Amino acid sequence: MQSNEEGRSARKHRQIIEAATAAFLAKGFDNTNMDEIATVAEVSKQTVYKHFADKEALFAEIVLATTEDVNQIVSLITDALSDTENLERDLGRLASSFITALMQPRVLRLRRMIIASADRFPDLGTKWYEAGFEQALAAMAAAFARLSAEGLLDVPDATMAANHFVGMLLWIPINRAMFTGNDSGATKAELARHARATTTVFLEAYGPRR
Amino acid sequence: MQSNEEGRSARKHRQIIEAATAAFLAKGFDNTNMDEIATVAEVSKQTVYKHFADKEALFAEIVLATTEDVNQIVSLITDALSDTENLERDLGRLASSFITALMQPRVLRLRRMIIASADRFPDLGTKWYEAGFEQALAAMAAAFARLSAEGLLDVPDATMAANHFVGMLLWIPINRAMFTGNDSGATKAELARHARATTTVFLEAYGPRR
Repeated sequence: MQSNEEGRSARKHRQIIEAATAAFLAKGFDNTNMDEIATVAEVSKQTVYKHFADKEALFAEIVLATTEDVNQIVSLITDALSDTENLERDLGRLASSFITALMQPRVLRLRRMIIASADRFPDLGTKWYEAGFEQALAAMAAAFARLSAEGLLDVPDATMAANHFVGMLLWIPINRAMFTGNDSGATKAELARHARATTTVFLEAYGPRR
Repeated sequence: MQSNEEGRSARKHRQIIEAATAAFLAKGFDNTNMDEIATVAEVSKQTVYKHFADKEALFAEIVLATTEDVNQIVSLITDALSDTENLERDLGRLASSFITALMQPRVLRLRRMIIASADRFPDLGTKWYEAGFEQALAAMAAAFARLSAEGLLDVPDATMAANHFVGMLLWIPINRAMFTGNDSGATKAELARHARATTTVFLEAYGPRR
């Protein structure tokens, strides 16, 4: 009986999260209300408030849950660059899979939503920045530092090098999506072009001294 | 008489724009209403609607007016790099003044506001991206192409090189401000460090072949 009760509660929690995620992404924080989340989730409004004290708590749980996606990004970095026998090829593959992961429409919409709410919920934005953005950068910095120790790169400041790699790769496509609202406008060919250019320039600047 | 009338109308227009800019930057588009803009601007609500059909039209005028700031950025680029006798020094100065201009709290708040509204007003966001963001990039690309023709740089794709310069320079400080909501958190020393690192790496990658 009790485990059924727990199962039902967990299921409702999940339904609320799914309904709220869809609503926040479609309409933003301000234009979403708890009534309609309850309706879409097929639970009562009381149930929504039993699980989440208010709309902000629900929003925070959804935003912070996405930092788990960062684990995938970190694996992607670690897998691409460990035991590389062809750094240019593997760096190119990393650039390509990194830009593809970050340019998914859902990830872009979430990014815009966190930015939009950052001035009102700075603690939430800061947590996301530290647990998400900075973790991916730290994983890349660690990989570059290791490659530098092995003599495959010449990287005096690994965190700055990771910043340069990601900044060169993403500046244009991310900003265009953020400003124009077109989250599915970048073509595969364009993303591949950014990945290639970043790899070439990064190795030119950070490759071992000849 | 007529010119007095025009003067009064222009003054009211300016008062409305100033009140609305402050309100949008402080509270965002959704939480700003025309009544309070009228009150702060010290004009009647009818006067607001005589000048602007609706809140969206007012917002659009404010956002698009800021593309004029881009002229200053373009001058900054052109002035820094024309007739340079010390490219490393002048590129460093450009990096430094560029990052300082873009990291002003007001510019960062405006950036967040445009991003926040991009999914609802994609035409406005697109206009701003094209008239603002892309113009600055184009000015830098033109300067790099010229320096490349003079043999001071070796830049096969000037637009990509401009993207790389700006992306390396701004990726960390802009994203941190966007996500954490802290628009005055970057120290001068930190911005100077990004400017120096970008200049060094850019010349390493795009300097003339030795």
